Amino acid sequence: MAEFDLIERIRKAIGPPGHGTLVGLGDDAAVYKPPGQLELITCDAFVEGVHFRRDYVTFEEIGAKCMVANVSDVAAMGGFPARAVLSICVPPDMTDEDVDALYRGALDVCRRYGAEIVGGDTVSSPSGLVVSVALTGSVDRDHVVTRAGAVVGDAIVVTGALGGSEAGLRALTQGLPEEGGVRDAKRRHLTPVPRIAEAQALIEVATPHAMIDVSDGLSSDVWHIAEESSVGIALDADSIPLAPCAVDVAERLGIDPLELALASGEEFELVVAIPENEVERTAEHVEAVTGTGVTCIGGVVGAEMGCTLVRPDGVADLLVRGGYEHLSE
Amino acid sequence: MAEFDLIERIRKAIGPPGHGTLVGLGDDAAVYKPPGQLELITCDAFVEGVHFRRDYVTFEEIGAKCMVANVSDVAAMGGFPARAVLSICVPPDMTDEDVDALYRGALDVCRRYGAEIVGGDTVSSPSGLVVSVALTGSVDRDHVVTRAGAVVGDAIVVTGALGGSEAGLRALTQGLPEEGGVRDAKRRHLTPVPRIAEAQALIEVATPHAMIDVSDGLSSDVWHIAEESSVGIALDADSIPLAPCAVDVAERLGIDPLELALASGEEFELVVAIPENEVERTAEHVEAVTGTGVTCIGGVVGAEMGCTLVRPDGVADLLVRGGYEHLSE
Repeated sequence: MAEFDLIERIRKAIGPPGHGTLVGLGDDAAVYKPPGQLELITCDAFVEGVHFRRDYVTFEEIGAKCMVANVSDVAAMGGFPARAVLSICVPPDMTDEDVDALYRGALDVCRRYGAEIVGGDTVSSPSGLVVSVALTGSVDRDHVVTRAGAVVGDAIVVTGALGGSEAGLRALTQGLPEEGGVRDAKRRHLTPVPRIAEAQALIEVATPHAMIDVSDGLSSDVWHIAEESSVGIALDADSIPLAPCAVDVAERLGIDPLELALASGEEFELVVAIPENEVERTAEHVEAVTGTGVTCIGGVVGAEMGCTLVRPDGVADLLVRGGYEHLSE
Repeated sequence: MAEFDLIERIRKAIGPPGHGTLVGLGDDAAVYKPPGQLELITCDAFVEGVHFRRDYVTFEEIGAKCMVANVSDVAAMGGFPARAVLSICVPPDMTDEDVDALYRGALDVCRRYGAEIVGGDTVSSPSGLVVSVALTGSVDRDHVVTRAGAVVGDAIVVTGALGGSEAGLRALTQGLPEEGGVRDAKRRHLTPVPRIAEAQALIEVATPHAMIDVSDGLSSDVWHIAEESSVGIALDADSIPLAPCAVDVAERLGIDPLELALASGEEFELVVAIPENEVERTAEHVEAVTGTGVTCIGGVVGAEMGCTLVRPDGVADLLVRGGYEHLSE
């Protein structure tokens, strides 16, 4: 692969630098006017054989998803994405056209959310494909929402419905036929959507104390809020909104859809701790503005309680990475 | 590897966030006050089996070198490094202590150049280690130096001496005994130094038209300036400063040290196009301030001339990636 050709092709695909960008891709570093108040930076790496397999995902989807994961992190801080750099470790069997397709997917997501690619590094890989994105963003000083502000008594709300991404992954890896919710589940896994608009609508109407995007899975991600906020979180098992496609796939696989919802990573839904009395107006406003539902799924409790899943009969299971475990043997 | 433990250990190693950083590592994204005038961003990925082999480099050196490569890019734009995010794809045989060591190396470089690590992603890799760093920096509006401003008649100068990194790589991979310049060459390859102070001294005294750091090798990197500036560059073979350790290793290997100097990547020396009448005072000032020599190695010519290496007898060879090729068969 000729490096000059590649850079030229990528430059052409990216087009002229966006507003405030003085030097884009192709120099030692990009140069830009920083955003007004505060800036964000985040990064995510996607590894072949760990995060994806090339037999069920296209290069365009890989590029898009890696960018979405970063845009989602910016959303979960209350910000807007701005400028991305993209490192690709290219295995021997990947062609120039494949690299173009990967960039196309990443660029498409950037355009949709007002970001641009301003730099990158394309190196060879002796084995699998690795894509690593770092993304900057901007955020208003009074809009920053970390994981660290949840207080006892807060409600825990979630955007959208859960389980679809994990259902899609299982449908893809187990080769389920394309019927019923299987198609939706696959799409949910391959082309997820970051919740920029939902985060903004939420900040407009509520005073979020802590926010995170579901990237590891609900059962893991509530622990991130709990640890950073020094609180516990009790989820109400019956309240967790299950994606219809996850219910359908779970039935086909003979498993509990709630398990899918708790374990499902890369959902990119937002989990937010807000004052209990703001739940109703928040749900109404966010749905009115974005079309995305907001559901109260539990509340913030003392740190000594840890993170639990409370069943209708009052039994509480400890939440753990990838699901839950019964507290008693 | 327990993710919480890892994040906690890394946080402890990093210490409290630096000036202007409101949220450091451990949230969805870092939050910081942008630098005053202009900001820079760059990224570099290092892949096991391509950029390094673990049999001759420590994890600390890998972390340090990946950070140095980025700091060097910031230097070559005329700026100062500020905030880094670090993605690590960890192979199965790498321990927690190895990850700590890698971070330690990266942190050490950050501290030396006034930067900090504000985020990262640590994921598993089915095969080799991949380290990907993105680094932001700050630069004064009138200090930005791109690759694109060289004009015909400019002198091409270089900091330091060349060939050491490639000599070290060959000494390491060919197992040369530690005598003479071999030790220095290995050190040069394993623990390179970015030229932040040299770039600043150069900007103080001269009006650099174009600048790049030698990361691919002199013969490739002059092409980057030439392409971006739409000029040609003629290097004077006899003027290229050869690192003594490169001369020593070349002798042991029975090769031409000039070949090492042209092909040697990861040197992180600066190649700069400046007005011809500024060469003398630039060399004096940079050496006085930093102790690093500056040598005129050629000049900028018309684009139609391409990039060439001119021998004492006047014969010009075309520069190509990794060295040169004779213009006539």
